Amino acid sequence: MKIEHLISQIHQKKSFLCVGLDTDLEKIPQHLLEDEDPIFAFNKAIIDATHSFCVAYKPNIAFYEAYGLKGWKSLERTMAYLNDKHPEIFTIADAKRGDIGNTSTRYAKAFFETLNFDSITIAPYMGKDSVEPFLAFEDKHTILLALTSNQGAFDFQTKKVNGGELYKEVLKVSKSYTNAERLMYVVGATKATYLKDIREIIPDSFLLVPGVGAQGGSLQEVCAYGMTKNVGLLVNSSRGILYASTGDDFAEAAANEAQKIQIEMEVELGKIHK
Amino acid sequence: MKIEHLISQIHQKKSFLCVGLDTDLEKIPQHLLEDEDPIFAFNKAIIDATHSFCVAYKPNIAFYEAYGLKGWKSLERTMAYLNDKHPEIFTIADAKRGDIGNTSTRYAKAFFETLNFDSITIAPYMGKDSVEPFLAFEDKHTILLALTSNQGAFDFQTKKVNGGELYKEVLKVSKSYTNAERLMYVVGATKATYLKDIREIIPDSFLLVPGVGAQGGSLQEVCAYGMTKNVGLLVNSSRGILYASTGDDFAEAAANEAQKIQIEMEVELGKIHK
Repeated sequence: MKIEHLISQIHQKKSFLCVGLDTDLEKIPQHLLEDEDPIFAFNKAIIDATHSFCVAYKPNIAFYEAYGLKGWKSLERTMAYLNDKHPEIFTIADAKRGDIGNTSTRYAKAFFETLNFDSITIAPYMGKDSVEPFLAFEDKHTILLALTSNQGAFDFQTKKVNGGELYKEVLKVSKSYTNAERLMYVVGATKATYLKDIREIIPDSFLLVPGVGAQGGSLQEVCAYGMTKNVGLLVNSSRGILYASTGDDFAEAAANEAQKIQIEMEVELGKIHK
Repeated sequence: MKIEHLISQIHQKKSFLCVGLDTDLEKIPQHLLEDEDPIFAFNKAIIDATHSFCVAYKPNIAFYEAYGLKGWKSLERTMAYLNDKHPEIFTIADAKRGDIGNTSTRYAKAFFETLNFDSITIAPYMGKDSVEPFLAFEDKHTILLALTSNQGAFDFQTKKVNGGELYKEVLKVSKSYTNAERLMYVVGATKATYLKDIREIIPDSFLLVPGVGAQGGSLQEVCAYGMTKNVGLLVNSSRGILYASTGDDFAEAAANEAQKIQIEMEVELGKIHK
């Protein structure tokens, strides 16, 4: 998907919400477990209920791999459904991969071609030749981990390198990679004030922001520091939407939750044009 | 697998060779493509031919994921075969995963329980709470990327943090993680002289060393700087063994190549007792 298409979708739907498909058999409504593919049945219901309020879906690959072959099949079916019914929606493989060149190419093919995702999250530790194989794919996007929202982010990401924090070094160095215009970055919302510094290094790049809602981040703060004239933000919510209700009304509850966020986002988008 | 068991296997076989199962349909002998599962057929032949000369197998997960459902099935069959026929051999999921806590737990279950691997490679960028969920599994081992053998290693891993390189900070910080005794580390052989410094920080930990052979590292140098009284080394070779021949004699050629390395390793092991 071209980035212009994503931006146009955001303005059309007045939303930059990404719904994280962290589908957990222990949390989905019990009656779905009778289905021959409960993970897909749940995802389909969630997608049908929420697609008007969001512009992206982000399956967390670990949740599918944990179930082995069955989980991989549910992921394939979910992606086939999204690509068929909602090709206008941006898809993110939350995979956090990263390996040496020919191995990264394999992962890129798996997610960009076999599963036809629009983008994938990547860990930066192995550097340039682990990231560039993903960047080689036209109209696909590589979302590099910069500053994550977990406690462990302080172990290495915020340590000083060349006078600035490691995550800033990641932002700076990655700008020189071939096809760097296809890069986006993960920046956790629990550290919204960091976004000001980040925007000085990457003024235009799209940021994928987890950690709003359940993890304690504020949408308004994220927008105040991180929004650009082309929006430049995808804000993710997973558990807050998926498990808004665990009863028969789970899809309706998910839709309500997504709409609530969409309405807040509409207010923030209104500020761009002022 | 307990570490003592791995060490005893090394002494028994006089080898600390790990064979990387980077199985590539474009490189395996053409006649195997007629098999209903060519990846498994190739792996089985390689395992049957090389198991006397090695103590570990390391499927590179990307090579399986690239083929979607089929690839995942080949991986499951390969692991079932290894666990059934050669439970004494140490298995490594070369997955380079790493995510926030509950997601890491999912990956740990996928590889340690569903697939029954003995160990997995993990990227350190997200810190403590992304690594500890893997360390929670008894008799399983977490192999943290420290210094990789690719060019991109110089982007971040060798940058100065707290007066030392980032990879040293990874070694130091990770030593404080809960169950740190279950950690091993990836250290590329193309930088064997770095091993001296590394051994000052982690004198006893096992190192998984890629980059010997095809990638240019020297086994003798790796042993000179990295070997401990309990060996402390697993040296990997993938392409050099798997694709020693692309003809009908591929398995025999792989065995010869593996044996050649085993013989060199026997010499190095002999030096421990001096």
